[in-house]
Amino acid sequence: MTFLLSDIAASIPAFDVHAARQARERQDRLTKPQGSLGQLEALSIQLAGITGNPLPRTDRPGIFVFAADHGVAARGVSAYPAEVTAQMVLNYARGGAVINVLAKQIGAELTVADVGVSSALPDDLIIHHRKVRLGTADWTEGPAMTREEALRAIQIGAEIFEASGADLAVIGEMGIGNTTTAAALSAALTGLAPAELIGRGTGVDDAGLARKLAAIETGLARLPKTSDPLEILSAIGGLEIAAMAGVALAAARRRVPVLLDGFISTTAGLLAAAIAPAAREYLLASHRSPEPGHTLLLRRLELTPLLDLGMRLGEGSGAALAVPLIQSALAVLRDVATFEQAGVSDRE
Amino acid sequence: MTFLLSDIAASIPAFDVHAARQARERQDRLTKPQGSLGQLEALSIQLAGITGNPLPRTDRPGIFVFAADHGVAARGVSAYPAEVTAQMVLNYARGGAVINVLAKQIGAELTVADVGVSSALPDDLIIHHRKVRLGTADWTEGPAMTREEALRAIQIGAEIFEASGADLAVIGEMGIGNTTTAAALSAALTGLAPAELIGRGTGVDDAGLARKLAAIETGLARLPKTSDPLEILSAIGGLEIAAMAGVALAAARRRVPVLLDGFISTTAGLLAAAIAPAAREYLLASHRSPEPGHTLLLRRLELTPLLDLGMRLGEGSGAALAVPLIQSALAVLRDVATFEQAGVSDRE
Repeated sequence: MTFLLSDIAASIPAFDVHAARQARERQDRLTKPQGSLGQLEALSIQLAGITGNPLPRTDRPGIFVFAADHGVAARGVSAYPAEVTAQMVLNYARGGAVINVLAKQIGAELTVADVGVSSALPDDLIIHHRKVRLGTADWTEGPAMTREEALRAIQIGAEIFEASGADLAVIGEMGIGNTTTAAALSAALTGLAPAELIGRGTGVDDAGLARKLAAIETGLARLPKTSDPLEILSAIGGLEIAAMAGVALAAARRRVPVLLDGFISTTAGLLAAAIAPAAREYLLASHRSPEPGHTLLLRRLELTPLLDLGMRLGEGSGAALAVPLIQSALAVLRDVATFEQAGVSDRE
Repeated sequence: MTFLLSDIAASIPAFDVHAARQARERQDRLTKPQGSLGQLEALSIQLAGITGNPLPRTDRPGIFVFAADHGVAARGVSAYPAEVTAQMVLNYARGGAVINVLAKQIGAELTVADVGVSSALPDDLIIHHRKVRLGTADWTEGPAMTREEALRAIQIGAEIFEASGADLAVIGEMGIGNTTTAAALSAALTGLAPAELIGRGTGVDDAGLARKLAAIETGLARLPKTSDPLEILSAIGGLEIAAMAGVALAAARRRVPVLLDGFISTTAGLLAAAIAPAAREYLLASHRSPEPGHTLLLRRLELTPLLDLGMRLGEGSGAALAVPLIQSALAVLRDVATFEQAGVSDRE
């Protein structure tokens, strides 16, 4: 199955500089002072280059939330018990979570998939049942999963995206312990220091934070010397991060922008870009979370977030909030009159 | 007519601390880590206190854009010729401007009113024709308008809001030269130094910036020694700033939140709070513009903006973008399941 990844990587098209230039020229003729919409103008131009369309649209946003458990949660790295992963999947299926409410607000389709929750979930739950394994193994003691399992999780993400018809892909996650896994994975992929990458996640205390750092250092110490992203992913996990990277890779192949959420989602973006460097151009940052590693990863990916509201929930929640900003930026580009059309005098 | 202002000021209800407390308690029981929605949580609690409803809604946002000219524009303080004010009102009436597109995106009703454009506008234009006078006089040479005219502009804003049925009031403006007027007015109301308050507005060059500062210093030098906001307003203007303050005062009286846009709109918020201190609790900051004075006024009003996207257009555009964030914050408060409802374990 390894050919799949190299095939995807090879088939990601280049950013369309011609469409981006057309969008930039149009922005400068719209009835507003040049540059007066700031980051919204840059965003609309970037979307033109991503989609290859000088007048892009993102009318069918899809939110893809993947849930999985982490063996490392047993190390006491989270403020919440591991069973919350499964409980929250039930909450998503019943429409009671924050991401359900936000998806409805923005008119986005929400897809929830179990790719590795550590308990059996009821069959009749309205989610995608695509469990690769019952959570990852504790990566402080051995590999999180096999290379085949890591690949399968990526492929599941890609397949779920392909089946969706979304023209904007929001990637989100649920997995108790996954800020620890994301910190270890992003440290391994970037060489950044774990101590700089970790934060309090859902709200762990000082002792928990110390356990988190100790776990990551143990995990990194037993990591094989390699720069192969798939080998690093297999060693650390997590399954939901792999699936989000699969969405990102499949979306990039179709010229669909990928809207990252917080630290864990951005780690998946980093993973996708490590697998296929061309995928980086398709990533958009929605918000900046207070998790220290998030800012470092955004800088590494050269992404500027749209929002900075102190959000640290995950589930794709910060990204969902940014969707209307993207849609508004594109509506302005398409629908505002030019100086010529409106008979308005340009600057003297 | 002076009794009108004191009546409004006296009739603004206090912030409802009980409703705010109920909203805070509910936020802490929703299925998410406490505080994990950051500023959105604070916003929902503030809206509960403003509206007096622990589960508030803002389903009928209204955008109120007032246009007026400024005699001071003759001093060469803007990058655009003064006739652009009238041309842009035509653009609003035809649906071609940024605020038209953004209003449609967010499903808000857009109301445009001429309160002082310096030329006659076609009668058949679909706007509110409420011209108080043909622009203000150049306030570097004499008073911008009479006290009666200033009051009339405030009252027009209040009447237009009252007729709207809006449950969230966005205040925006169009008026070539109005960052100069807003800087002079806010300097007079706060004592802040004009040099710190001014910026490039729609994009004036260095020479224009120097003319802007010189005009403001001349205007402030001939200002009568007074702390009466209405007298300061009459001396400097502008008519659209007065009308926006009128919306804010009338909205506060009805417990309707007032969403400020950029520097000029925030100057109107400052003016409303100077007239009626109780109105300050009803103001919300949507975004931070690069205009230096905006940050200073937000600090003075103790407001934290939701967005910081380098926008400096006016028209209510930055505020319109923030409306979906407010609606999402409130939808989360109303509709997300609690830990008890969802059977999710709270933190250990």
